[in-house]
Amino acid sequence: MILTDSLLDFFLETRKDSENICQPLEIEDYVVQPVVDVSPPKWHLGHTTWFFEEFILKPHAEGYKEFDPDFSFVFNSYYETVGKRVVRSDRGNLSRPSVKQVYAYREYVTEGIKQFFGQGQTQALNDLLEIGIHHEKQHQELLFTDIKYILGNNPLLPVYSEKFEDHPIENHQSDWIDMDEGIYDIGHNSEDFCYDNELGRHKVFLHSYTISNRLVTNSEYIEFIEAGGYQRFDIWHAEGWDWVNQNKVNSPLYWHNIDGKWWHYTAKGLQKVDGSAPLAHISYFEAFAYAQWKGLRLPTEFEWEAAQKFFPWGTRWEWTESSYLPYPNYQKADGALGEYNGKFMVSQKVLRGGSVATPNKHTRHTYRNFFHPQLRWQFTGLRLAK
Amino acid sequence: MILTDSLLDFFLETRKDSENICQPLEIEDYVVQPVVDVSPPKWHLGHTTWFFEEFILKPHAEGYKEFDPDFSFVFNSYYETVGKRVVRSDRGNLSRPSVKQVYAYREYVTEGIKQFFGQGQTQALNDLLEIGIHHEKQHQELLFTDIKYILGNNPLLPVYSEKFEDHPIENHQSDWIDMDEGIYDIGHNSEDFCYDNELGRHKVFLHSYTISNRLVTNSEYIEFIEAGGYQRFDIWHAEGWDWVNQNKVNSPLYWHNIDGKWWHYTAKGLQKVDGSAPLAHISYFEAFAYAQWKGLRLPTEFEWEAAQKFFPWGTRWEWTESSYLPYPNYQKADGALGEYNGKFMVSQKVLRGGSVATPNKHTRHTYRNFFHPQLRWQFTGLRLAK
Amino acid sequence: MILTDSLLDFFLETRKDSENICQPLEIEDYVVQPVVDVSPPKWHLGHTTWFFEEFILKPHAEGYKEFDPDFSFVFNSYYETVGKRVVRSDRGNLSRPSVKQVYAYREYVTEGIKQFFGQGQTQALNDLLEIGIHHEKQHQELLFTDIKYILGNNPLLPVYSEKFEDHPIENHQSDWIDMDEGIYDIGHNSEDFCYDNELGRHKVFLHSYTISNRLVTNSEYIEFIEAGGYQRFDIWHAEGWDWVNQNKVNSPLYWHNIDGKWWHYTAKGLQKVDGSAPLAHISYFEAFAYAQWKGLRLPTEFEWEAAQKFFPWGTRWEWTESSYLPYPNYQKADGALGEYNGKFMVSQKVLRGGSVATPNKHTRHTYRNFFHPQLRWQFTGLRLAK
Amino acid sequence: MILTDSLLDFFLETRKDSENICQPLEIEDYVVQPVVDVSPPKWHLGHTTWFFEEFILKPHAEGYKEFDPDFSFVFNSYYETVGKRVVRSDRGNLSRPSVKQVYAYREYVTEGIKQFFGQGQTQALNDLLEIGIHHEKQHQELLFTDIKYILGNNPLLPVYSEKFEDHPIENHQSDWIDMDEGIYDIGHNSEDFCYDNELGRHKVFLHSYTISNRLVTNSEYIEFIEAGGYQRFDIWHAEGWDWVNQNKVNSPLYWHNIDGKWWHYTAKGLQKVDGSAPLAHISYFEAFAYAQWKGLRLPTEFEWEAAQKFFPWGTRWEWTESSYLPYPNYQKADGALGEYNGKFMVSQKVLRGGSVATPNKHTRHTYRNFFHPQLRWQFTGLRLAK
Repeated sequence: MILTDSLLDFFLETRKDSENICQPLEIEDYVVQPVVDVSPPKWHLGHTTWFFEEFILKPHAEGYKEFDPDFSFVFNSYYETVGKRVVRSDRGNLSRPSVKQVYAYREYVTEGIKQFFGQGQTQALNDLLEIGIHHEKQHQELLFTDIKYILGNNPLLPVYSEKFEDHPIENHQSDWIDMDEGIYDIGHNSEDFCYDNELGRHKVFLHSYTISNRLVTNSEYIEFIEAGGYQRFDIWHAEGWDWVNQNKVNSPLYWHNIDGKWWHYTAKGLQKVDGSAPLAHISYFEAFAYAQWKGLRLPTEFEWEAAQKFFPWGTRWEWTESSYLPYPNYQKADGALGEYNGKFMVSQKVLRGGSVATPNKHTRHTYRNFFHPQLRWQFTGLRLAK
Repeated sequence: MILTDSLLDFFLETRKDSENICQPLEIEDYVVQPVVDVSPPKWHLGHTTWFFEEFILKPHAEGYKEFDPDFSFVFNSYYETVGKRVVRSDRGNLSRPSVKQVYAYREYVTEGIKQFFGQGQTQALNDLLEIGIHHEKQHQELLFTDIKYILGNNPLLPVYSEKFEDHPIENHQSDWIDMDEGIYDIGHNSEDFCYDNELGRHKVFLHSYTISNRLVTNSEYIEFIEAGGYQRFDIWHAEGWDWVNQNKVNSPLYWHNIDGKWWHYTAKGLQKVDGSAPLAHISYFEAFAYAQWKGLRLPTEFEWEAAQKFFPWGTRWEWTESSYLPYPNYQKADGALGEYNGKFMVSQKVLRGGSVATPNKHTRHTYRNFFHPQLRWQFTGLRLAK
Repeated sequence: MILTDSLLDFFLETRKDSENICQPLEIEDYVVQPVVDVSPPKWHLGHTTWFFEEFILKPHAEGYKEFDPDFSFVFNSYYETVGKRVVRSDRGNLSRPSVKQVYAYREYVTEGIKQFFGQGQTQALNDLLEIGIHHEKQHQELLFTDIKYILGNNPLLPVYSEKFEDHPIENHQSDWIDMDEGIYDIGHNSEDFCYDNELGRHKVFLHSYTISNRLVTNSEYIEFIEAGGYQRFDIWHAEGWDWVNQNKVNSPLYWHNIDGKWWHYTAKGLQKVDGSAPLAHISYFEAFAYAQWKGLRLPTEFEWEAAQKFFPWGTRWEWTESSYLPYPNYQKADGALGEYNGKFMVSQKVLRGGSVATPNKHTRHTYRNFFHPQLRWQFTGLRLAK
Repeated sequence: MILTDSLLDFFLETRKDSENICQPLEIEDYVVQPVVDVSPPKWHLGHTTWFFEEFILKPHAEGYKEFDPDFSFVFNSYYETVGKRVVRSDRGNLSRPSVKQVYAYREYVTEGIKQFFGQGQTQALNDLLEIGIHHEKQHQELLFTDIKYILGNNPLLPVYSEKFEDHPIENHQSDWIDMDEGIYDIGHNSEDFCYDNELGRHKVFLHSYTISNRLVTNSEYIEFIEAGGYQRFDIWHAEGWDWVNQNKVNSPLYWHNIDGKWWHYTAKGLQKVDGSAPLAHISYFEAFAYAQWKGLRLPTEFEWEAAQKFFPWGTRWEWTESSYLPYPNYQKADGALGEYNGKFMVSQKVLRGGSVATPNKHTRHTYRNFFHPQLRWQFTGLRLAK
């Protein structure tokens, strides 16, 4: 629970953060969608705004005048409850509304929220606003990784920012943490915000296990590449092996082998791979194959959550062995917001942690991120267990 | 563990069973592959034979002469370790080897095994033979369901057998079983045969739950259809909803609505749907949507295993909410047999139980079947939990 | 025009011919469809029979009892006028009706025609019967080439017949024929049977040209291969170049390079390529690229027709530079038969000549065969012009 | 032939024209590629510039410094001779180079050409420059129609310009022109510029025919729609019928049926369809079906060329019945420019005339435009013949 005042500050700061992420962009960078999973930056800016307009201002703010009725069609993402929408693969085909119009839309809705919440509102509306803020934060991470993809996929490999470090180093000694067999409490357990998929708090029995206090590094992964890891079917899932072969994958995303040396595209442009930095931009298939090759395994999300206090985390989203499934007694929210999480609980893997692209106050030790096993444009890495 | 003598009997009986399943077929029925998941019956007959030749006779039986070196290429399924093979989607393009040649191959290899094991063999070879027998039993289930698909997909809807009842009725009263919270032991726990994915025996904590003693019936599912279940996006997974719409699904597989009445293709040909029989031929997506619509859920595989002794089962494979993942301390077998289970542990759901097509002695309460969530040509049904 | 008596003989002989082509087959060979353009032999046998039943017996023979109403659905090819049908790509998924039933169907309809025409019929019905006979002859060529594909695509490369020579040699000296500029009459010009696409007879002006009296041979084409013809984009159409690269084409269909020597699959099984025999099984794209590489070109269909009396032809269908278009004053036939030719007059190239698979009395110098430019499972070859 | 001075003026005027076409655009409109056939405006601006740089300045202008070596990769279209390039379907995925950079590139190269040709050059170089100018004019038409598609495909349907009339009316009375049988001269016949595909001049025999002096109008086509033309398979090519059904086509491109009235997207935004204006934005399949429905046909390109002086033309590209094939004695140009036309001479139909989007001095009565039969984003219309 959070008071209206500080909630409004949180809201305004979050709105500003989204725009700051886009500050280095040219107008053209806001528009394109090189692959279906990557949305145009202007779409993220519009969609997060639409969320506040559609779920708060339109139904609750008396006298609110919709900015432009066509925008609903353009900026709805997947909420079937709310009506028709541009199909996802068409987002990059839309030159209008222009970036300027999208910023005007943002300003209009931000102002609308400010006025509507200015005098305080009910707890239910505050809760809705808080969800909207977290929704925008969630998109900020995608906004950043989508921008990275848009620039990193361009043959000119333009620099995003000379100041953004997306490959920080873990400075502590590598070690193994032994965890005892027993019953552990899993799931969210405080008054702070969380998503429905982190509830309800429940018990899980874990056999004793050992988990690394450190993420796998680039140099460790280069050993795997050099040992022929991408050519050995026996360490891959059957679907992973097909993925490797159909896509001719032989290194993490953004890696280029130039004259026998590994370089990668980063926010600072093309850089030499630093072997001591944690690995990023691998799929679950690659994470699994690497672990197999080492004779080890990935932790489950429960093992991760139970042990996380013993190691630093937060620069990489970490693939776990767990599939994205409902917790016992999981309750879907009512109405359109019920579409937020539950309907994706099939065919995806859970990631735990956070990343250099995760906004401030957005992740926590019970946060469950999820992606299909072949995706790797997030800052995805891995931690080993045994 | 099993003695060589009774093992050989078990082997011979299993070999005979496969051929009995094919007894009603015309030569032409052995050849076709209407969809990629359905293999031609002659391929199953050849592949199960190849398994014994490739893994037992060729490496271990001194002086054994391979039946035909080309058959390895034709009848290998997915064992990358063992070499090149006909791609799965091409199995139905092969008119040769002829059915007659495949039966000759079967006889030759059956005879080879008989002679090789006639005087007794080492425990390791007995174990291998036992795996081969269970492998053939596993294919018998596919053989039957593939035949059903081949005939049921044909516009002439030919009868397989007037005697085979694939829609038996559960005769007990519907009831809910309450299970206590606690730690349960899960996994195989005897000297009898099991697959590697049922090991190792481990503990799972379950919160208290309630599970039905009965499978959902056809008439219950017809209520769901009539209530517009296939038109309500809010009860489906996003991927399920896409599947429904792309494939225009509006009923279980094999169902036909003729003049407002439901009929379905069965082993006896086109029959009226009997409302009191357990539902079959639904996908996980449909099972999930049905449960959502009822305000209930599917059990996990652990809940199922813990409660199974309190209800009859075995006429339908039952979709669970669990994804197919390794148990703690799962160990992949060495060599080509290591490809048997582990490499499929992604993107699939676990089914528990057995079905009218499951061969004698093939399933057990720890048996873990698995399929992709959209598949439904097996005798798949559902049991509810809450 | 043809009298009923000799027409009936022609009919019966043609019916027998189709069955003779299938005589070397195993039951299994009748069923499969390895690519969409290749139909199962039993489908050809059924479809040619259906044509007589659907267009003659059912509408005209009083008291005729349809063999089986479901067969219409199974054996209609593309006649939208006549109703629903099995989609083309599903023909190989049908194990029923069995081969035995298809032969029974043939016998039943043959007998029906025999009785119906036994006492003589009107000219209009005789004409319809004649079309049906030519339709069956047209399918005989496909029947043979489809069988060749079914067997030649099988890893066991089974022999069709030791006696069938599909690679006869042209024994005359290679020479160039000079043709004068002038107006030439093109199109059918006799009382004998022809298809609507060969009418009406019309005038075409041809500039002087030169045409080879001989087909390009295998050894000439091997020179092209060895000169890197498949790697030189500048001699290919853009669509041809895409086709080569997407399909990794580097030789004619059925050719295998074994230890540096060229072999090919023939009716007699795998044989060494005889350099002196005319080339076969190339696409229009390959024919065009070969001509470009030689600094020459393909003749138009008009050039071919005007010159054909000066050279032997009939062992290869010859690709021409002409697109398949209607002649001036082309009239589509009425009713379902109007679907025979006209609706295919787009995106296809004309072939002239005939082949070792063309039935007796089926081709003539005005006959216009047509296929999409990438297809090559017919006995397609080429003749050069300049 | 053209003198250097007036050629340079022609060049500068053409360069300016391209930029004028883009004048109404927002930056965002320059970037997107909603379908593979439509290129982003900035790509056209860059590509036409690259042509001058690659074929004139780089090889011939001593001391010329390439603007940016990466641009070759980005702006090459299909010239295999010249090296690697961005695949066509990826053009809309590139946000960089920015529009500003592309304009700087244009200015740099325009200036380079101005200086290089300022003192006069050889005839060969003048010829090359002239080709470059016509190449840019050809792209101007695509630039305009691609912009129309980008805006007309956008749900906001933005106006391009209130002043551009893309639906002018033909004001003369409808009449039929009778043309005599005879030999006609076809192909380019002056010193003015033409493309290689218009040469060489040659004779064609035409039977007597009749051709309309007027284009088919919107109201005539509405009759076809209302008579169920899109539902009658018998008037379509088989491939056309598949196209109609797969794409659910039921009107020309850009047409919307709103409350029973026909509207269409034009340069002025959404407008009521004016029945008296010539029809546009139909595929060859639709043109053919319409003619069939009328019991008439499309003219061949030779009939069109022979009769064109008797009727006005130039507002619509007119589909002909002719396939795009080489004229007798067609000679492909040497080097990369040889890729200009010849390699597309398969699977395409010829269009004659010109359109409201055709730049000044770009078309002529021998000009041969060509597109695949399903395409309709050009201002394609039809004229009937019989």
